[in-house]
Amino acid sequence: MAETHRRIIMTSRPKAEPTPDNFRLEEGPVPKAGAGEILVRTKYLSLDPYMRGRMSDAASYAAPVEVGGLMQGELVGEVVSSDNEKFKVGEHIAGHLGWQSHAVSNGKGLRKLDAGQPLAPSLGVLGMPGMTAYTGLLEIGQPKAGETVLVAAASGAVGQLVGQIAKLKGARAVGIAGGPEKCRYVVEELGFDACIDHKAPGMAEHLKEACPKGVDVYFENVGGPVFEAVFPLFNFFARMPVCGLISQYNMTELPAGPNKVPQLFRAVLTKRLTIRGFIVWDFAAREADFRRDMAAWVKSGEIKHREHIVDGLENAPSAFIGLLRGENFGKTVVRVAPDAK
Amino acid sequence: MAETHRRIIMTSRPKAEPTPDNFRLEEGPVPKAGAGEILVRTKYLSLDPYMRGRMSDAASYAAPVEVGGLMQGELVGEVVSSDNEKFKVGEHIAGHLGWQSHAVSNGKGLRKLDAGQPLAPSLGVLGMPGMTAYTGLLEIGQPKAGETVLVAAASGAVGQLVGQIAKLKGARAVGIAGGPEKCRYVVEELGFDACIDHKAPGMAEHLKEACPKGVDVYFENVGGPVFEAVFPLFNFFARMPVCGLISQYNMTELPAGPNKVPQLFRAVLTKRLTIRGFIVWDFAAREADFRRDMAAWVKSGEIKHREHIVDGLENAPSAFIGLLRGENFGKTVVRVAPDAK
Repeated sequence: MAETHRRIIMTSRPKAEPTPDNFRLEEGPVPKAGAGEILVRTKYLSLDPYMRGRMSDAASYAAPVEVGGLMQGELVGEVVSSDNEKFKVGEHIAGHLGWQSHAVSNGKGLRKLDAGQPLAPSLGVLGMPGMTAYTGLLEIGQPKAGETVLVAAASGAVGQLVGQIAKLKGARAVGIAGGPEKCRYVVEELGFDACIDHKAPGMAEHLKEACPKGVDVYFENVGGPVFEAVFPLFNFFARMPVCGLISQYNMTELPAGPNKVPQLFRAVLTKRLTIRGFIVWDFAAREADFRRDMAAWVKSGEIKHREHIVDGLENAPSAFIGLLRGENFGKTVVRVAPDAK
Repeated sequence: MAETHRRIIMTSRPKAEPTPDNFRLEEGPVPKAGAGEILVRTKYLSLDPYMRGRMSDAASYAAPVEVGGLMQGELVGEVVSSDNEKFKVGEHIAGHLGWQSHAVSNGKGLRKLDAGQPLAPSLGVLGMPGMTAYTGLLEIGQPKAGETVLVAAASGAVGQLVGQIAKLKGARAVGIAGGPEKCRYVVEELGFDACIDHKAPGMAEHLKEACPKGVDVYFENVGGPVFEAVFPLFNFFARMPVCGLISQYNMTELPAGPNKVPQLFRAVLTKRLTIRGFIVWDFAAREADFRRDMAAWVKSGEIKHREHIVDGLENAPSAFIGLLRGENFGKTVVRVAPDAK
């Protein structure tokens, strides 16, 4: 039976939280590779919070998805036909080829996977989220032995790695996650020293208990009330890599006052805080270091990882909506090819 | 006629803006140097915005002045008697010896001035404010040739130097100052490329015109509405050394909402801003570099400086209150010894 080309289109921009109406599944014939091109059959698609930004036309570091255009994202897939000497049929690649079951590419920007490299983790611990955790923590956070590293969204794609890398560097790792199951996983499986449930009452008090020496590095994925609970705990010279702000991606207006910017700046000044935003490609020069270190840590078992696997491209929109609500547990990937291992 | 020892005591903590009631002039006999000590006769006293923080008992990087205690601050003075072999009568020193006409010291923490070094500038361009400008701009701001450096309180002790150092590094220097006279001075005497009057209407629009390529470094001395006008102009990867927040030192409650922290963090993330607070002693390792470079720049005339000289220790409180209102024009120093040159 001939395969169908399936793709997810953004039909309209979300006003606040995305809804299923903002997406449409389109079907058609599988495209063919032209001169110098390859055809890729998608195995897994990565879903990441940053994609919410691409759905908006507010100015940002990347161009937005067009209304009526293909949703953007990275996938891993198999080369199924090739007119490009750099890629052989049967090889696996990772690339930003969008939410679709098949993709034609001239090969530019694709990353070839080693034979036998596990596919879903290539989009997580060994991919962009892994490098985000590695570079943001080491380049901006710069944890030292004995310091306390606090990370929000600690069971998510990036957070789960931040705490483990912090431990490898001799720091105390404390996570913040939603719900007791995630918190238990973060401590018992990943080896964080503590994890605070932001859905349970008393978060601020629990955070304080879990960070008896204060916070030296706060790896920010969340913003909002979680940040407010962390804020009083900053030590002198604390560093705050700003990686994501998932709590405010669906925000349509600023929260009620008072305006706390002066309070924030006062702490920046008196405690000499560093607050620095980044995206992973700002540290592209560290990619080789990341690939070497992370592959070794995964192989040795020093770094564990967990993927949240959703079956079927048609379920990508609902999985993405759930990801923004924190319903995932681990790095979210969509199994696009039913036979993907 | 015997000299009198005069000192300014903090009688109560200010609630908002300090008032003359918060201070008292005390007189008594001139103290005597004991074993290993020296007696210093004050020539000039430095007044600096950070002292407002010392009058408050809110947690900060330095212990507050005690109620009933001597106001803290740096002075330059002459050694008038010495039982310490490191200091000779007639030498001049700078040190944090407080708001007083005479001080006894064991010599610890004092900095000896070179013979003939001008005294008032030793508290400004060649002292703590000079090193603050030098280290904050070069270590955190890191201006590159062709970039735009914007500095608030541009005619003040630190701001006047920040823009001139930026020019020496090949950057465009834009100042913000209060009133046309200060702005004219900043451009015509100090050589900034532009200076915007924050007391005139249309500051945000004028800033935008003065920074046609946006802002790469914003040296923050002020906070509040000035920051809000600068905020939209940040370029990608802009750096913001937070040196002072004079607009909010007298603040008793946070301003009305909305809460703009999420808006700030969104810009930090998407523009990859760096916001970092500092005080000068964080960069103590750069002191020798500062002394070498700044002395050379002042000598060659590449760096100009202006002191705002107030006569009489008894006028220090009103001069300090005026400094917090922006009434000074240049580095504020009090001539404590009527004969000081």
